[in-house]
Amino acid sequence: MTTSDVLAGASLDSMVLKCVTCGRTHALDELRWRCGDCRGVLDLEGFTAVMANASALARRRPSLWRYAEALPVPEPAGITMGEGGTPLVPAPAKRGVFLKMDYLMPTGSFKDRGAVLVAALAERLGVRRMVADSSGNAGAAIAAYAARAGIVCDVYVPATTSAGKVAQLRAYGATVRQVDGTREDTAAAAALDADDPDVFYASHVYNPFFFHGTKTYVFELWEQFDGRLPGTLVLPAGNGTLVLGAYLGCRELLDQRLIDGLPRIVAVQAENCAPLAHAFNRGRAVSQAGAAGGTIAEGIAIARPARAEQIVAAVRATQGEIVTVAEPHIRAAHSALARAGLHVEPTAAVCWAAIQAFPERPAEAGDEIVAPLCGSGLKSKPPA
Amino acid sequence: MTTSDVLAGASLDSMVLKCVTCGRTHALDELRWRCGDCRGVLDLEGFTAVMANASALARRRPSLWRYAEALPVPEPAGITMGEGGTPLVPAPAKRGVFLKMDYLMPTGSFKDRGAVLVAALAERLGVRRMVADSSGNAGAAIAAYAARAGIVCDVYVPATTSAGKVAQLRAYGATVRQVDGTREDTAAAAALDADDPDVFYASHVYNPFFFHGTKTYVFELWEQFDGRLPGTLVLPAGNGTLVLGAYLGCRELLDQRLIDGLPRIVAVQAENCAPLAHAFNRGRAVSQAGAAGGTIAEGIAIARPARAEQIVAAVRATQGEIVTVAEPHIRAAHSALARAGLHVEPTAAVCWAAIQAFPERPAEAGDEIVAPLCGSGLKSKPPA
Repeated sequence: MTTSDVLAGASLDSMVLKCVTCGRTHALDELRWRCGDCRGVLDLEGFTAVMANASALARRRPSLWRYAEALPVPEPAGITMGEGGTPLVPAPAKRGVFLKMDYLMPTGSFKDRGAVLVAALAERLGVRRMVADSSGNAGAAIAAYAARAGIVCDVYVPATTSAGKVAQLRAYGATVRQVDGTREDTAAAAALDADDPDVFYASHVYNPFFFHGTKTYVFELWEQFDGRLPGTLVLPAGNGTLVLGAYLGCRELLDQRLIDGLPRIVAVQAENCAPLAHAFNRGRAVSQAGAAGGTIAEGIAIARPARAEQIVAAVRATQGEIVTVAEPHIRAAHSALARAGLHVEPTAAVCWAAIQAFPERPAEAGDEIVAPLCGSGLKSKPPA
Repeated sequence: MTTSDVLAGASLDSMVLKCVTCGRTHALDELRWRCGDCRGVLDLEGFTAVMANASALARRRPSLWRYAEALPVPEPAGITMGEGGTPLVPAPAKRGVFLKMDYLMPTGSFKDRGAVLVAALAERLGVRRMVADSSGNAGAAIAAYAARAGIVCDVYVPATTSAGKVAQLRAYGATVRQVDGTREDTAAAAALDADDPDVFYASHVYNPFFFHGTKTYVFELWEQFDGRLPGTLVLPAGNGTLVLGAYLGCRELLDQRLIDGLPRIVAVQAENCAPLAHAFNRGRAVSQAGAAGGTIAEGIAIARPARAEQIVAAVRATQGEIVTVAEPHIRAAHSALARAGLHVEPTAAVCWAAIQAFPERPAEAGDEIVAPLCGSGLKSKPPA
């Protein structure tokens, strides 16, 4: 890649979507969300991320767009809301543990990192209508960025979604399509709509640009730790939007020799809905995991994550693990964080719950542990 | 002030609280919230703010603590949540107008700028118990930072306060004291408690450290405009926490010759509760303004602002004005912002409503207009 390419931003022409299963490639403007042959998930090919040098970074604003040369689309001037650049704070009463305030985002969750990339791509592809299928953080993020991009947006949600969440999606101008049945039925309805060749599926699960947004979580840590990464990244895992993004970011830093090795990724699931943990620890196929039990960590209550194999493989590649936390521990962690002034949603407390079970605190630089506070407490009822 | 003073942080010993009306001074550790003689409001004396130079700023994190030499307390390591450093985005369909994303704060509003300063002061004074009297953004901010500082906090709220807001305050560990009667009755109950000599009144209205926090709004703009300020600051006005903070910040920049003149401050009130506008435009005393009418901009529905004279004087000193906006225009602005992906609380929409009535857009650099989006939409019901 030449300097002028970097300055001009990456060219979409050189990029394709490649099936993880069969290797078939698809042009971006085909608007495919999964492989046309085998229905496998797609990754982005033909883009090489480059981290700007220190003197360039020193002159840039704190938003995630400071990593322009490492992102597959240029900063979308009319869409960005300054997302990214979230603070890192020492965790209460745990030396060597840090919490990244990733809910300090325009729509209140880390999902804005991915949503802005997906909306920027949609704008450049000239998309007229996009669909999404989440009633939670991803739905709000996609609806907000679609609004900024001036793209018509339909959000499919379960009919049981609360009136407040529906109202918020509508406030952004999205059309809310309520689907009877399970969350899987909702995703199926969205996917059917997304199969229309003129419709862009702004999926936080299937669209690989989303992960090129969430990877900036790691880039920011790399800067916050003065050019290295902490030894352990504790991350919530449902559909794996943050685990896969973080892994991608770590790989890109390693490929550029900006870090010496991969930090260990500890992915956290709610015990009541832990298909990834079962697959990782017991070798069970994710499809056998069965229906989700109830959990207050609704943001990661995903019974059949579409990218399950990638998530398990990523954690293994870092010598990490996938752990589970029980409901009482999630509740206790949620409450403890609020008592320390950190009012987050229950899903954002699972990592803190998991860290309580870790062995004694790390002793040396490089052994630090970082977990994200990934969603605002204003999105949920306060802890009891 | 010597260099070593700056490096060590300001010394509280040299500072006093001075009555704006009679000039009497009070030591900080007296924990006075108003003048012991005439009951006038108190300002901070004996502190001179210094802006760090560009090369020092370039090495610092984006939080408001990057302005350490300009703040009367050092960064409180165990209290800060990385507050400040909020992005600036171009306003939708208005060239030359920018919106500062000041709701991207730990508790969801700009009040965190002031609350962290007040909590830091309380910690250094060795305070054991603090009281506050807001059911809204200031109450949440004070409760959160009190929790981080490990200081017992009682928050007085009207008995009519919603269960959700009460639950949030309790989640932070605050004791919520519900008071029958008006908002003024609630403030009176808090003030009675605060007259106890061992109690610290963490008031966003009376405590001048709060304004030394909110002034950082202007410092950030000064950096975001590359060492100058926009021509006009449009600011919501109720108790004046942002107007007075912004004015203080502008004065401090001017005193250091870092700007050539003061930007014009346009303060915005809801037409239904506009004592400051009446005092400014018709010369009426604020005390004659009468009871507040109903407004969805509840964050600025203050019938008798304690610092009214200071607010009016500040606006006059900048050749500014105090304008009002009617409820339908606030509702329309609130909805329009959400449709542009900016989901804020109704109070945060009053400036955007006011800007719609401004004459044609500014043409030149220096004529820019900036307004804050000062509270998260997740704090309120979405716009209809």
